[in-house]
Amino acid sequence: MQGLMMDMPLLVSGILQHAARHYGDTEIVSRRVEGDLHRYTYADCERRSRQLADALSRDGVSIGDRVATLAWNGYRHMELYYAVGGMGAVIHTINPRLHPEQIAWIVNHAGDVHLAFDLTFLPIVEAIAAHCPNVKSWIAMADEDRQPASARVVNLVNYETLLARGSTDYRWPEIDERSAAGLCYTSGTTGNPKGAMYTHRSTVLHAYAAALPDAMGASSRDCILPVVPMFHVNAWGLPYTCPLVGAKIVFPGAQLDGKSLYELFESEGVTYSAGVPTVWLGLLQHVRQAGVKFSSFKRTVIGGSACPPAMIRAFRDEFGVEVIHAWGMTEMSPLGTLCRLQNRHLRQSEAAQQKILEKQGHVIFGVDMKIVDDEYRELPWDGKTFGNLLVRGPWVIREYFRGEGGDPLKYDADGRGWFPTGDVATIDADGYMQITDRSKDVIKSGGEWISTIDLENLAIGHPAVANAAVIGVPHPKWDERPLLVIVKKPGAEVTRDELIAFYEGKVARWWMPDDVQFVESIPLGATGKILKTKLREQFHDYRLPGA
Amino acid sequence: MQGLMMDMPLLVSGILQHAARHYGDTEIVSRRVEGDLHRYTYADCERRSRQLADALSRDGVSIGDRVATLAWNGYRHMELYYAVGGMGAVIHTINPRLHPEQIAWIVNHAGDVHLAFDLTFLPIVEAIAAHCPNVKSWIAMADEDRQPASARVVNLVNYETLLARGSTDYRWPEIDERSAAGLCYTSGTTGNPKGAMYTHRSTVLHAYAAALPDAMGASSRDCILPVVPMFHVNAWGLPYTCPLVGAKIVFPGAQLDGKSLYELFESEGVTYSAGVPTVWLGLLQHVRQAGVKFSSFKRTVIGGSACPPAMIRAFRDEFGVEVIHAWGMTEMSPLGTLCRLQNRHLRQSEAAQQKILEKQGHVIFGVDMKIVDDEYRELPWDGKTFGNLLVRGPWVIREYFRGEGGDPLKYDADGRGWFPTGDVATIDADGYMQITDRSKDVIKSGGEWISTIDLENLAIGHPAVANAAVIGVPHPKWDERPLLVIVKKPGAEVTRDELIAFYEGKVARWWMPDDVQFVESIPLGATGKILKTKLREQFHDYRLPGA
Repeated sequence: MQGLMMDMPLLVSGILQHAARHYGDTEIVSRRVEGDLHRYTYADCERRSRQLADALSRDGVSIGDRVATLAWNGYRHMELYYAVGGMGAVIHTINPRLHPEQIAWIVNHAGDVHLAFDLTFLPIVEAIAAHCPNVKSWIAMADEDRQPASARVVNLVNYETLLARGSTDYRWPEIDERSAAGLCYTSGTTGNPKGAMYTHRSTVLHAYAAALPDAMGASSRDCILPVVPMFHVNAWGLPYTCPLVGAKIVFPGAQLDGKSLYELFESEGVTYSAGVPTVWLGLLQHVRQAGVKFSSFKRTVIGGSACPPAMIRAFRDEFGVEVIHAWGMTEMSPLGTLCRLQNRHLRQSEAAQQKILEKQGHVIFGVDMKIVDDEYRELPWDGKTFGNLLVRGPWVIREYFRGEGGDPLKYDADGRGWFPTGDVATIDADGYMQITDRSKDVIKSGGEWISTIDLENLAIGHPAVANAAVIGVPHPKWDERPLLVIVKKPGAEVTRDELIAFYEGKVARWWMPDDVQFVESIPLGATGKILKTKLREQFHDYRLPGA
Repeated sequence: MQGLMMDMPLLVSGILQHAARHYGDTEIVSRRVEGDLHRYTYADCERRSRQLADALSRDGVSIGDRVATLAWNGYRHMELYYAVGGMGAVIHTINPRLHPEQIAWIVNHAGDVHLAFDLTFLPIVEAIAAHCPNVKSWIAMADEDRQPASARVVNLVNYETLLARGSTDYRWPEIDERSAAGLCYTSGTTGNPKGAMYTHRSTVLHAYAAALPDAMGASSRDCILPVVPMFHVNAWGLPYTCPLVGAKIVFPGAQLDGKSLYELFESEGVTYSAGVPTVWLGLLQHVRQAGVKFSSFKRTVIGGSACPPAMIRAFRDEFGVEVIHAWGMTEMSPLGTLCRLQNRHLRQSEAAQQKILEKQGHVIFGVDMKIVDDEYRELPWDGKTFGNLLVRGPWVIREYFRGEGGDPLKYDADGRGWFPTGDVATIDADGYMQITDRSKDVIKSGGEWISTIDLENLAIGHPAVANAAVIGVPHPKWDERPLLVIVKKPGAEVTRDELIAFYEGKVARWWMPDDVQFVESIPLGATGKILKTKLREQFHDYRLPGA
């Protein structure tokens, strides 16, 4: 029997319409590439987004077409999100930090028909334009009087000129909520980047869940500054969550240094932010050096990579800012878990609470997770056993764009598909998940698993160690055993045996590294992560003593 | 182009599964009809709900069948919500305060195949059983050793006996999210009661929205005691919202007096509650008389009828409890608006904030509203102009069960249907709605509208007035003019002219009542509301002086 409720699709255009109608004069403030601050309201943003949608459809963009962006966080990027998604086309955000060759590959793979870019990224556009024959126009997101000229880019269009061709009479179409609304490629550490294609439904449900008190806890009392880029998994959904709850938005543009951020926090009364740990290091450094405090900043979500416990404590103890540790991935829209205390934790000691807050956190309604062994048998939630982390939910992908990589899902006995995250994690009895390793890095020794991250964190605690990495190396009896790779601090001395002894009493005996190798440097990626693949190549011919 | 996200239906069973998996040992505490406290966990609740679903389907209940309840707030009622809804049948909650004849009419109209009841309501069951031939069994929600016997009820079944026949191997079926999940009849002040039929989709979306920080703001840090009955529009959705966020639940059963509630608040650490103003009057009275304070209670939602401003102040100033004024209706699942301050209000004076908090509040994402005149032209949001309040959204009905009353919707120029709430309201520039009257009570004088509620509230402020009602009476020139009907306080004296003069400077001149009539009593309904229909009948032959 069908129920008798109004049947209305969940559409991203509905979010912005809600904000324009019910929080019409709430502000969106943007620091532009030009350096100045631009201010307008949700009502303005919705009107201009409709105009842009009309202009794009007059230009021939139709349902399902991909329109790409290479842009910072700003109001024009927001308009593109809603104009393109709202009209039934697909907003494809590209990470400008990728190599131009990779960007061209992604543009062509996605089949983008237009690409809008901030002036900062004109050099990228100049480098790729000739290699992207599918792109009909390159839209410079600038005022008309700042429109660049480029001999290398045919069909260079001005954003404002384009938008002005659209009519404000345009009405958002009512489309299928399972239509594609957004496209974002994974960074692709192995093989080519793969595209996650979000639907209107997945985006709206994710925005609801992200705003919940146990998730981001976003409300119309907040002024939110998304430091996390809109080219990075939709800035964790904030361009959708903020208008859904009517929060004021402050977009920082290209200036993400500690001083610029701090000034914007103070001048706009920012209460809430979200970003990766490296950005917050810069901010903490600035406020400490300048000897200043935050007058409105109260909470921040930190994700992207594990937040150092010291950063959580520094924000809380020195600045009264609550850190919400979060975990997710491109394939998850991205939010999976966030770390907030539950009622039962409120009476625990501060140290016990801090231990919980260092975990990646608890799922929000809509995401389910489990940990499994290599035979996909479910493992216990005891906070100790670790296994491959699998997830499912209405904002988790079921496959990649154009079927790349085949069917990524793992099916359980009931035939339900689970997405393998590639992470190894523990889950405790209260449902809090903690990442212990990447699946491809974890060491499998005699059927048991050893966390390389745990061993590295311990080694870094030794006074003579500047950096440490642990990799698994072949062993005839145990399959794999841990090898500790060490960069010593300048002038410091420490021996192999001292380092191995340093683990005594800190980990189980069978976790202790079998050997130590001293190196000049450890290969790091662009984001500061250790490149374990390179390290494993480097030690390809290494043999354990006695093995 | 279709997106590529997992396609999972939004089902009520998914909410309880989420709670069982991720908040498995969070408690549900229930005061039972027997007087004792029952405690168990979300994992227990989910397991028993599955057992009950299996038992009911073995008993022949199938998809779309209606199963009714006459029950207080308690764990067995919660199990029925999820067992019946989760299996694809329809949980039909009935208000036991209705007259048995009305209840029998509703049971037959709904076509209920089973009816489960708390022992309190055995007399109702005995009165109606013979008149409800469709009901196959009457399920007493009691332990087996307390199972009642009744010569007047054939097929009296024990809840626990029934449940024990089900298997815990039962798996929740994956059904269409637009299937009916719940049924609730309006109180039916005019004509027969009409049924609102909720879907899985509407229920899950409503539960998401209800938990938002600007709505109820419910979280796993909360211990929630729903005073609002589960037979009254699903206790405002709390049996769905609480497990969605992992809040501890305390069900008060039949004991809703101030002392019993206070004791439960304290012994269970309740942080959050929800109910109608009359219940809170009793609680306030108790805590004041006993000279006690709340040690954990922080916030409460008050709705059902307008919350007196003095109650909002008393809770805040005397007890540090935040009152969240809310508005909705059976046809809206029920939440439409809730009243929380926005960022822009935080710097306003306490008096200005209090004025806002007295309004019914702001919509949550999912509900849209507008005010229109009698020709359905949209009226301005200036906080002064009032008009008929219309709503739409995925948890608003599109028609009543069995098509009763025809198509209730009003269509705008774009062909979109809006549900007319029957309320008259203002909306201010920030989107805050305030009910000023019922559509059928508002006085239409010379094309302008006069709020009877405003005039009554002013009259009650006069020291000689015990109660006041205002109705519109025919006028040859102005169509209608206000007549003030007054019950004087015992021993107090006041004249017609004094009362009319009392309005001077407080309302526009054309709002002032044309006449005053003194009566011994004003007809009140069961919930204390003035029965304006009766009052209008009573003054049917009355003529205005000079009219």
